[in-house]
Amino acid sequence: MPDPRPIAILGGTGPAGMGLALRWARVGETVILGSRDAQRAKEAAEKIKQKTGSESRVSGMENSAACAAADLLVLTVPFEGQAALLKQLKPAIRAGSILIDATVALAASVGGRASRTLGVWQGSAAQQAAELVPKGVSVVAAFHNLSAELLNGDEDLDCDVIVCSDDANAIHVCRALAARIPGVRAIDGGKLENARVLEQITALLIGLNIRHKGHGGIRITGLPPEAYR
Amino acid sequence: MPDPRPIAILGGTGPAGMGLALRWARVGETVILGSRDAQRAKEAAEKIKQKTGSESRVSGMENSAACAAADLLVLTVPFEGQAALLKQLKPAIRAGSILIDATVALAASVGGRASRTLGVWQGSAAQQAAELVPKGVSVVAAFHNLSAELLNGDEDLDCDVIVCSDDANAIHVCRALAARIPGVRAIDGGKLENARVLEQITALLIGLNIRHKGHGGIRITGLPPEAYR
Repeated sequence: MPDPRPIAILGGTGPAGMGLALRWARVGETVILGSRDAQRAKEAAEKIKQKTGSESRVSGMENSAACAAADLLVLTVPFEGQAALLKQLKPAIRAGSILIDATVALAASVGGRASRTLGVWQGSAAQQAAELVPKGVSVVAAFHNLSAELLNGDEDLDCDVIVCSDDANAIHVCRALAARIPGVRAIDGGKLENARVLEQITALLIGLNIRHKGHGGIRITGLPPEAYR
Repeated sequence: MPDPRPIAILGGTGPAGMGLALRWARVGETVILGSRDAQRAKEAAEKIKQKTGSESRVSGMENSAACAAADLLVLTVPFEGQAALLKQLKPAIRAGSILIDATVALAASVGGRASRTLGVWQGSAAQQAAELVPKGVSVVAAFHNLSAELLNGDEDLDCDVIVCSDDANAIHVCRALAARIPGVRAIDGGKLENARVLEQITALLIGLNIRHKGHGGIRITGLPPEAYR
């Protein structure tokens, strides 16, 4: 069943944001694409509707307006834009919101390789996000390791999403959202500090993709069935 | 087909070393278990033979003797013992050897948690190993993410082994060894510097194991078939 709450994807007009929006719109979720440019966001929403049908609930707004209209926020921006965007949006983010951060501190953000990461003082990009959001907003780390190319396609994914947060309820909400994507299993990965490993895995997968010309993802094996539910 | 060369597992009487030895002995490889204590190594070898049959080729030796008897070396020691052991074995490791390092710098090495890692100056435990081996020895990073408990069992594994090294031939040799373990697919993970992510994944899996009471492993999805061969 769709979550009754709209999901606002901030910086959502890039490939990862568009892919998540497409998958959620297809299963009936209400999605708001956020962008610096409201017009660009609206056009991106139209593109998705062309694939999902005119009755699907996808709209586009400037990022601040998207925050005002939703309390389930997903952040899909390159690392070099993450802190500035969160500082800008701080007044707009509603108390009690859940912010799902998918940022990876790739060295590409400073002209280096996408198969290498930068050290982040707080331990991970997600922990940096947790420092920048208003009090009472829960940060979750998830969705780093879903190939944007595959998300934007039609096939079921063959990937697990590991979800980390210090807020157990936020993990629960995010796992449910992840499990709405066909083929995805969502696993509770524990505290937000574990996000650093999820972020590193993205760099490894990018390296594998370059080396083997693929769209790598990961599955976790060996856990009891209830861990995947 | 078994590799004609013996595989020496240094520090091989722990759970990971015993598990690898068991799996390789079962498929006809020649395995030397290395330990500080030759007697302990011999007893461990006998334990494995009780499972694999008296005709299987498993023996036990003191670590230096194992190095002298083999040029395929696998290092399975806790991080706190890695550097000291490599310094001690330096005169015994033969030129042209391949050293496969499975060390993970878990914070447990200094009394912290096994679900957290320590920073290693060189970038990873494997890169530290590369600094400590004699010239002309190739270091490979692999086998971090196979559950010792599952290795010591009878079932096929449901895990991939990502193999990293700066020596393409050493990657080739190690991939072949990994693929001898039933259920394992071995993937070329590129340069040794990528070992840092493999090592971090171990900490994540340990955290998942504690949280979900499992024996976690990983599979990489989305690569073309030739990447898994």
